[in-house]
This record gives sequence, structure tokens and C-alpha cells, in this order.
Amino acid sequence: MVSQIQPINLHADRLFSADPKMRELSRALYKTVADLPIISPHGHTDPSWFANNECFKNATELLIIPDHYVFRMLYSQGIQLEELGIPRIDGGQVETDYLKIWRIFAAHYHLFHATPSRMWMDYVFSEVFGFTETLCLANADDYYHKINQQLNSDAFKPRALLKRFNIELLATTEGATDPLKHHAKIKADGLNQTVITTFRPDDVVDPNIPNFLGNIQNLAEQTGEDVHTWQGYLNALRNRRAFFRAHGATATDHGHPSALTADLSGVECEKLFATVLSGDASAQQKELFRAQMLTEMAGMSAEDGMVMQIHPGSRRNHNKQVFEKFGLDKGCDIPGRTDFVDSLRPLLARYGTEKDLRIILFTLDESVYARELAPLAGHYPCLKLGPAWWFHDSPEGMLRYRHNVTETAGFYNTVGFNDDTRAFLSIPSRHDVARRIDCRFLAQLVAEHRLTESAAFDLAYDLSYRLAKEAYQLTK
Amino acid sequence: MVSQIQPINLHADRLFSADPKMRELSRALYKTVADLPIISPHGHTDPSWFANNECFKNATELLIIPDHYVFRMLYSQGIQLEELGIPRIDGGQVETDYLKIWRIFAAHYHLFHATPSRMWMDYVFSEVFGFTETLCLANADDYYHKINQQLNSDAFKPRALLKRFNIELLATTEGATDPLKHHAKIKADGLNQTVITTFRPDDVVDPNIPNFLGNIQNLAEQTGEDVHTWQGYLNALRNRRAFFRAHGATATDHGHPSALTADLSGVECEKLFATVLSGDASAQQKELFRAQMLTEMAGMSAEDGMVMQIHPGSRRNHNKQVFEKFGLDKGCDIPGRTDFVDSLRPLLARYGTEKDLRIILFTLDESVYARELAPLAGHYPCLKLGPAWWFHDSPEGMLRYRHNVTETAGFYNTVGFNDDTRAFLSIPSRHDVARRIDCRFLAQLVAEHRLTESAAFDLAYDLSYRLAKEAYQLTK
Amino acid sequence: MVSQIQPINLHADRLFSADPKMRELSRALYKTVADLPIISPHGHTDPSWFANNECFKNATELLIIPDHYVFRMLYSQGIQLEELGIPRIDGGQVETDYLKIWRIFAAHYHLFHATPSRMWMDYVFSEVFGFTETLCLANADDYYHKINQQLNSDAFKPRALLKRFNIELLATTEGATDPLKHHAKIKADGLNQTVITTFRPDDVVDPNIPNFLGNIQNLAEQTGEDVHTWQGYLNALRNRRAFFRAHGATATDHGHPSALTADLSGVECEKLFATVLSGDASAQQKELFRAQMLTEMAGMSAEDGMVMQIHPGSRRNHNKQVFEKFGLDKGCDIPGRTDFVDSLRPLLARYGTEKDLRIILFTLDESVYARELAPLAGHYPCLKLGPAWWFHDSPEGMLRYRHNVTETAGFYNTVGFNDDTRAFLSIPSRHDVARRIDCRFLAQLVAEHRLTESAAFDLAYDLSYRLAKEAYQLTK
Repeated sequence: MVSQIQPINLHADRLFSADPKMRELSRALYKTVADLPIISPHGHTDPSWFANNECFKNATELLIIPDHYVFRMLYSQGIQLEELGIPRIDGGQVETDYLKIWRIFAAHYHLFHATPSRMWMDYVFSEVFGFTETLCLANADDYYHKINQQLNSDAFKPRALLKRFNIELLATTEGATDPLKHHAKIKADGLNQTVITTFRPDDVVDPNIPNFLGNIQNLAEQTGEDVHTWQGYLNALRNRRAFFRAHGATATDHGHPSALTADLSGVECEKLFATVLSGDASAQQKELFRAQMLTEMAGMSAEDGMVMQIHPGSRRNHNKQVFEKFGLDKGCDIPGRTDFVDSLRPLLARYGTEKDLRIILFTLDESVYARELAPLAGHYPCLKLGPAWWFHDSPEGMLRYRHNVTETAGFYNTVGFNDDTRAFLSIPSRHDVARRIDCRFLAQLVAEHRLTESAAFDLAYDLSYRLAKEAYQLTK
Repeated sequence: MVSQIQPINLHADRLFSADPKMRELSRALYKTVADLPIISPHGHTDPSWFANNECFKNATELLIIPDHYVFRMLYSQGIQLEELGIPRIDGGQVETDYLKIWRIFAAHYHLFHATPSRMWMDYVFSEVFGFTETLCLANADDYYHKINQQLNSDAFKPRALLKRFNIELLATTEGATDPLKHHAKIKADGLNQTVITTFRPDDVVDPNIPNFLGNIQNLAEQTGEDVHTWQGYLNALRNRRAFFRAHGATATDHGHPSALTADLSGVECEKLFATVLSGDASAQQKELFRAQMLTEMAGMSAEDGMVMQIHPGSRRNHNKQVFEKFGLDKGCDIPGRTDFVDSLRPLLARYGTEKDLRIILFTLDESVYARELAPLAGHYPCLKLGPAWWFHDSPEGMLRYRHNVTETAGFYNTVGFNDDTRAFLSIPSRHDVARRIDCRFLAQLVAEHRLTESAAFDLAYDLSYRLAKEAYQLTK
Repeated sequence: MVSQIQPINLHADRLFSADPKMRELSRALYKTVADLPIISPHGHTDPSWFANNECFKNATELLIIPDHYVFRMLYSQGIQLEELGIPRIDGGQVETDYLKIWRIFAAHYHLFHATPSRMWMDYVFSEVFGFTETLCLANADDYYHKINQQLNSDAFKPRALLKRFNIELLATTEGATDPLKHHAKIKADGLNQTVITTFRPDDVVDPNIPNFLGNIQNLAEQTGEDVHTWQGYLNALRNRRAFFRAHGATATDHGHPSALTADLSGVECEKLFATVLSGDASAQQKELFRAQMLTEMAGMSAEDGMVMQIHPGSRRNHNKQVFEKFGLDKGCDIPGRTDFVDSLRPLLARYGTEKDLRIILFTLDESVYARELAPLAGHYPCLKLGPAWWFHDSPEGMLRYRHNVTETAGFYNTVGFNDDTRAFLSIPSRHDVARRIDCRFLAQLVAEHRLTESAAFDLAYDLSYRLAKEAYQLTK
């Protein structure tokens, strides 16, 4: 283990190929996109930050406790989640000394060598907070105090950071029955050209979600619809979609266990919905219901023009003990094999040629990039490919994405970058990684005479900025 | 989007690594194979071209309308197939102004950036038609007229192009009941050392094929066999195989949805065949019948020495609306996950050690390269690996193929390149891409001291020319 | 084919990138690990070699006949196993002229171009036996005689080679009922700090193993337990684990067809075990029994601290004819698709957070690296990833492993290299390949400014030496 203090590893040429010709081209391309505004059309930041514009409180609370990328790695090496201050469901005791937690993180910073978390963190420390030395146990306290000091200043309030980060647009994600009061405040304060919401109806379409029936009831109260009939339920969803659009939403998001879709008859839908509401649905019936609901959502998108995002394939809460003690989103969601080609067929047979339908597909199963997703997106006008997602939102993951997808789908059936993060401070670093990797990929194509330099410059702009705006209909 | 006119991007070093050492080695290797004759042992050109030797008529008709790689990409970006002149099944109206269609293609040429279609097209425009400027809307009319003019000349007649392209051998593919009259004419004209057929019995072994029963009836009439008995049916197939061999065929081809094989008893076969003929077979029984027929075909190959090609894994006609309006082969065949290791077991248990059996396997599911196909081909004497296929017939696809297959299967269990195309004019460009990529791969091995230079030169020749001739038994 | 004699291709920079910057870094890193002692914590060498310390007899008998990597490739090109002296089960005649077999190997040495077997063999010929010319038919006899001459000397006795190869620790693998008499001799001779055993209970937990019931009977006799009750059977296994630990074992190994685990109730276990013992278990019940036994073994590892290795996914004896004639391990074990995320869930739900449990996972299905294994190992404290295995124990395979695994699991959830070989003489070459590839990977990260040089030097040591010792608890 290295013990002496090291400078932060944030070289101007990081992530570019070592080959001098490719590096030079990468640099030239990157220079033209490095300072473009950030379009962040899919993410999980907390809208209350932008509504209330209060100071973030503490380095540990902001950078470690909510970041499952960070604490899962520490946990994998034997550090208990309690030691890291992760709140227990039962309110049981966990570490509350934030400095102590910060020191654990600092002492184990080497675990993150060559991971994207390390690259994002180093960027945040250097570019956002102005550190020049790599975090280690020796400087952990200094880091902690200096970060807290800065967080406490006006310059580090959420709205100031939005500006400093050059974020042109940021979409948060809210559940179907969220009252969107933070977004109402954001709108009242005139920030609604910058911060918008996204409609995520999983809570009211997935019978496996805890309190599903309560959510349905909530939906009834919010919309005045009789949600116990199939048509009333669909109307309630239409109603909420309109409500979300009124708060800026241009897109919906669907986080299903699989990409399965169905196209049942009206009668079958009514029957299945009744079974689901009865609470007696089998696992198979629940899966079928989710499948049917993806098709219904596609139908509504064809009506109201909202862009539909499908994020399938995560086996959530794989670690039973951690889930029971700490709840959701604790770094134990593990991807599984995911089929798209057969699964999407019913939806596409029904709505695949609708003129105004746009669906953006994401995957955690990279084996489908070249085999299924690129051929699908390279054919269906309604399908586009979202960027490399989650575990694959990384330099290697992005390179695999471009290498596997481009030859069949081209560039223009992809939609630019999503940061998909709740870690607000890391947003610039994530877009920076994506821009660098795209420039590197383009540079390789040019260096190997597979693309002209002039096309590469156009594409660098498109991939960094234009395609995201267009795909999410943010151009108005 | 670039608006000014650009030179065609067809650099002498295209597709070679940017690394100077590897590039130099690639160049040296490529120089020795660039002008070797073309062996095209598997493809879909129209034999009437070579039989009748008439001029091709029109740029659009030759280069766009039959090329599903091209029109699927335009369709994916919202251009209707009707606008591109793709004929409708119902004879409904589609665009007939070929210049107008050509202009649409030219205006959207940027969609093909970094795709193999673009690379093939640029080669055809430059090397076959002599253009020096990249196609764009500004020069679309000029392109169109100059291509048409050249197509109208003797030098661009099919047989002249066969010579000009230095094609030593070209195999077309015909269904089992095809009368092979074009091949008879080719033979009569003494061109049968250059253009041969391939026996593709899908029409009479896959009960899902439209008019399957009619095809069986046809088979009866052509062979005089009682095709309503299992043995009569098999004899009819033997008869047709002999007929194809008499027209030059050295190989068969099988395009099944999966690689499933079966080895049923004689009694079970008779019963299954009767069910299939009755038209009452379930989806499962049809799959089982195809599976049994792969094994039967392997048995016949062991008898008559025809090389058996298996091309599994395409989910055909995925876009229901397009299929219903425009029919087969419209760019909406999407690959799916494909198993080989369990699927081929029954066939291999029966015939896997037959001395004269040779089976060439292809896949659309690259995840099986290193996991299943290379270990299978690196063991069974009857199995060889076909080149990267369809969506993977591309620079990146070919590199993945070599990187994943070589360490376990070696080079000598692979069979050189197949262009698999109906786009006759692109054949030289496709072989050129394959030769360049193979030289690039070999150059890397040499540069990293994993292969001697002398072995690399031998292998460049083998991969470009010798292995294809040997694998398809074209050496007589 | 090259006919003139060539020098052996064993360049000092082999396997490093051709890029000058990366090569220089690779060299610098490699220099610090090239001479580290070898830790070989998982392999299949014959313990009688080290117990008896007799001379190896013959080049063919040592290097060809037991090496299924070698003879499967020759077999794939039409050479019969009988011609290679592979013993038949029925004692039928096979070639016994070892020089003649050696000549066949030499004449076909080109088949191994760019395979790991070729690289290992060239290293053995050059570094172990001192040859300078590449093996070919012309020098085959000379090679054969010089190897035999050297094998006959004291310097080439197994214990001398252990020292010469700088092997600090070597683990062999024995079945649960093996009396371990060779290891007793090794211990008596004081070599038990260097050569240890590993507990592999497949023979007594997998009902598909030939003579499974006989093995259970054997277990009863060795342990005095009533193995016909579920608890007696488990106790017998505990007993054997202790016996193996007394002969140095720190680990167990499990070679199941799949990674399926189960967590049945005690009553269900008793019933299932009775069915299995009755010999009437269905294929499904046998799979369920293996699944339950993986969970039981994890439970015992949590008790006794033995490191559990799971090697799933090989479809054994795929070639029926070869299996029937020649038996197990004849190069016809073919990998298949393997799921981990759902399969391991029952075991992990039961024991996944046990403090003293350590499980090392291996795979033959590379599609799970980034999708399943890295996320699992990057979360569960009990899970670590074994190195690239079997067909993937190769330069390309190792690179794919690092590129796919590192960003999510980091380096410290991996366990260094395993050679997994029965080819004793190739052990240094295999570790050399692994060290070179790891240095190459680290060099790339440094050259692209994704890792500091100082971290890379630490990691080169860790990956080459420290992690293996720690993961297999060899540090005492």
C-alpha cells in the first residue's frame, strides 16, 4: 500500500489512448466539447435541493452515505454498513461520527483504483473543492474540514452549483403519486427551464412494490378516477402523466425486472387487473401485468408524446440480510441476463410503427448490445439506445457500448449521455468521462480511416450535446 | 452536418491500427494478399445475372432497393419504406422515381458513418465507378447519372465484372425445388467453374415456411418419390442433393431459427413426419422436425460429401407491420440468444466422428464464440467455424471473432471469409475489409511477439484464400 | 507452411502492447514481479511425483499424452486419438511408439499458432530444456532425445524442479475419499509447507458420478459414520474435511455442472438424500441435491474456515464416442451458459454474511464477468473472483477478464492467478503469462492516466503474489 502523499491523478489527457496520433486527435475533439453545457435528461438528484437551495451539510452525508457505489465496495471488503452510518430500517444504532466514517473511506481509497467511482471522486475533490493531493488517511481530516467549510458557503448552494456546473437542463425522477411540490416551487422560482421532473410509474404498475395497493388508492385520491376499473386506472395514469408534463416532464421511466411486454385483449386486461387488485396474483400474473403495463405506457406515449425509457434487468435486493436491515438501494442490486428481442415483440407489434412514439432502451446485459439492441434500434423508428448504464457507466463500459453498437445502429440511433446519478456534485465529472471516451472512440475511427475528421467533429458535438436534447425533446 | 463536398474516405491504410509498428506490419501482410483471387463460397447473388449477362439497369434498383442494410437504417430514422420504392406485397403504390429515391439516400449518407455499409459503398463508388467525392445531396444527381451510364456499358455486364473483380469462384444459394435453369445455362456457357449453386432445403424441411406443403408436393413431382412416406421424403432429398451437385454445388445451407438437433428413432420420425404433413403440428413438433432434419442432413453429408453450413439464430420478420406490408428480408430479422453446446449434441452423438462429415457453424450470438464454438471446433474433427456473420460481418465484428476464437480453435479450424451478400458490386469491398482486418489481427500478434512474422505471412494467405477453398472442397 | 527451421519465438517483450509508452511501462512493472516466488493454490499435478521424487520418463508421456489441450487440437484436425497413444478404456491397441507420436506433434506444431498451448510449450522448450529452435518435423527426433536425456537426470526430478521453478506453494486436488498417502509421505519428508492438498468432494456429492454409491460406502468406511442418515453423511464430510486440513488443505473445490444452490429444510434434505441413495433420483432431483450440497459445503466452510472454490459450467464428455472409448478429460468438455445471480441466491441468503466464509467463483461463461460476477464480488464480503479459467486462461482471456471485472469489483476482490494445470513443467510459463498480462493491463491504465504509476507497482506485486496467498489463507 502506498503511504506517502500523492498528487491527484487528473491528467489533462486522461482516458485518451496512449497512441500519440489517437491522443492528439482525441485532444482536438475534446477541446471542442469540453465546455458545452450539460444536458442531464435522466437522473436521481433530490428536487428539494433546487427548490429550497439550502447548503449541503457535510462531506460524509453528501458523498458517502447516499452513494451505494462507494459503500458497497467498502462493504465487500468486510466493513460493516453500520460503521459507515448507513441508516437501519429499525432505527438501530449506526455510526454517527461523520469524521470517523470519512476516515474509513480515506483509509480504503485504494480499493477504488481503476473504478469509475475513483475517477469521479478525484474530479470532485480537485475541480469542485480544489484539492491537489490524493485523499488518504494522512489528509483525511483536512479534506473533511475543508469540504464542510466550502459546503457551508453560498457558492456551494445547489442553484449556484447548477450554474457553475454549466447545467443547461437537469431531469429528476419522481414516482407517479408524488405531489411534485418541489417542482412547483422550482417553477414558481422560474427555474423550470433548468430543472424538470420525469414520470416513473413503477409504484403503481408493479404489484411487487411494497404498498402497491396503497399507491393505487393514492392515485385514486389524486385523480378522482375510479381506479378499481381498468379504464379508470388507465385514465388516472393519463391524468398523472399530464400533471407531470405540467411540471416539465418530457419523459417517463420504467424500471422493470425484465423487458417483457404483452398485448392482451381488453377483457383479459380487466380480469388480470382485478386479480392484481385482489392481492392474489401469482408471480407470473404480476409479471404479465407489468408486461401489459409497458405496452399501455407505450400507447399513452404515442398519444401524449412523452419519451418512454425502459431500464430492465436488475435483480433488486439480492442480499437478503442487507435488504431486511437497511432496505432498498444498498448496492446489492445485481444484473441478470435480459432478453429484448422476444420480450419487446408484443409491444412493437402493437405500437412499433406509431409515428410519435419514441422508446429509449437501456440494458445491464451487454451481451445484447450487438445481438439484439443495435439491430432493433437500427430498424425500428420508435427505438433508440440509451447510453451504457449503471455498472457499465464507466470508461470500459462506454467503449464496449460504442464498439458493439455503432456498426449496426450507427450514431444517430443513440441518445447521448445520461448521468443517472443522485450524486449531484459528480455530474460534471460523469459527463466529462463520457465526452472523453466518445472523443477517444471517434479519434480511433479517424486514425484508422474509418471516419473523416470533419464527421468526427460533428459527431463529438452531437454525442456530447445535441442528441440528448433531441432524443428527450428538450429543444423547444 | 457537413455541407461542403468531401473527398471519399478510402485511405490506403484504412482499418489498420494507428500504431506505427502494427500499421507497417499490416501493410506488408496486406500487400501479399490484396490481389489474390476472390473465393466467395457462400452468398446470395442472383444466378440469372450470370446466366443472362444483361446490363444492370439503374443505381437505385441495384444499390438501394434490394439492400436491407441500407434501407433499414433509413427506415430507422423515420423514412417510410414506400418513399424508398420498396415494393408492397399488395402492389400498393410506392415511389417509382428512382432519382428521387437516390437523393434521399444521398441526403442521409451521414447516417452510415462508421458502419460497414458506408465502407462498402465508398469502395464501390470509388473503385468500381471511379468517383472521388463523397456522396452528398449536392452531387447526388451527378452520381446517379454517371452510375447509370456506366451500368449501361459492356464493361459493367455481370460476366465482365466477375473477371474484373478477380472472382475465382462464386456460389449462389437456391431452394431445394429450384429447377436451377440459370445454373444450367451457366454450365452450358462453360462458366460453371466460376459460378456454382448451394443446396438450401429450408423450404422443404421447415414446416413454418409459407407453402411448405406445396413445396413438398413440388419435391414429389421433381423426383418421382412418394414424399408422403418418411423414406420417400428422404430419398427425394437425396435426389435433389445429387441434382444440385450436378450443377456444381459442394455445400448445403440451413437457416434454422435455432441450432437444435434431434436423433429420433425411425418410428418416431415416421410419426412426426406424418403429423407435420397433416398440417396439425404444434410449434414444438415443428421445431423437433427441423431438429431431426438437421441430423438427417448431416447423415446425408456424411454419405455424399457435401459440406453442411448451419446459420441459426435469426428471429425473422420481427416487425409485424413491415412483414405484412412488404414481406421477407426487409431488415427486420433480429438475432436472438443461441445455444450450440446442448443443441448440437444429438447430431454429434450420431455423426460427430464420421470421417467425411464437415459442418461449418455460423452464429449471430457472439457470446458463444469463446464459450461454445471455439471449444467445439477445437475438438470435433467434423466442425469448422464460419466467419463473422451478417451484423458481425464488420471490422469490429471480425476483430471480436478473431480475438475470441483463435486461442481455443486456432486458425485452421476456421474457414476464411464468406461475403454472404446479394450486393454483387460490393463483393470486392467485403473481401477487402476481411483481408485488411485479418492482416491487422496478425500484425498485432506479431508486434506482441505472439506469432512469428513468417507464420503471419503464411496465415494471411490461408485466411484470404486457401482455407475457403479447402473448407468448401473447391480444390479439385 | 514454413519448412525452414525458425528460432523459438520467446521475445523479452512478448505479450506487452506494441505501443512504445505502454511497452516501456509494462517492462518496468514486469521486471519487479518476474522473479517472485510462484503461488499455485489450485491445480492438478500428481502428488506421487513430489512424494516419490522419481524421474519423469519420456517427453511424449509427460508432455502430450496427458495434455488434453494438445491432443484435442490434433484430434480436431483429423488425427485419431489412438495414433497419439491415448489409452483406451477397453485396453484396445493404441500407438506405443512414443517417438512416432512426438513426430506427429512436431509435424502439426503450426496448428497451435497463437494459442496459449504454443506459448507454454515454447517456454518449456526454451527455458526448461534449453532449446533455441522452434519444434518442427526436422528437429523432432533431436528434441525428443534431448528432452528424454534431461528428464533422466537428477536436476529434472520433481523436487528439484519445484526449487528451480521457485514454487513457494503448490496445491494439488484430491477426491474426498482419497487416502492422501502421497501427501502423508510429503509431510513425512518435510515438504508439506510447499505441497498441499485440496478437498474436492464431487465424487461423494454428485449422484451423476460413476460409482457414486460406492464412493459413499467408502466414505462410511473411512469415517465410521452412518452415511445413510443425512446427519451421518454430513458428519462424514466434516470428518474428511478435517483429514484434508491435517494434510495441509486450506481450500475445497466444487466442479458442478451449474452454480445452482438450494436451501431446503432439514426434513426435505433427509428425504432428498434418501432418494439419491436409493438410486432412483431423477435428473432434477440430482441437480437439486448438488445444489443443496453447495450450500452445506458453504456452511461447513463458515465453520472450519476452508476457502470454497466453485468451478461451474462445463458440459463434460460432450463427444459420446470419445467418452465411451477413452473416458473422462479427453478435451471434449464444452462450456455452456451459466447463471450465477439467481443460482447463488439461496446459498447467499443463508450464509452470505457469515464473517469467516470465503467463496471464490470461477466461470467458463465470460458474459457473466461484468453482468453478474463483478457486481456480486463488488458487494458480498464472502465472494471473491477467481482468475480467467481453462479456455480463458490465455492472453486474450485474461485481458477480457481484467477489462470486464475491474471497474466494478476492483482489484482487491480478485485472488491473483491459478494455473489449474496437471502439466507441471508448464507452471512457470503459465504464471509468466499471467504476470505479463497483468503488467500490460496496469501499464495501459497508467498510460491512460487512470491509475498512478506508484499504485501500479503495488498492484503488480499484489496480483502476482500477495492476493493469492491471502485469498487461500496461505500466509500463516
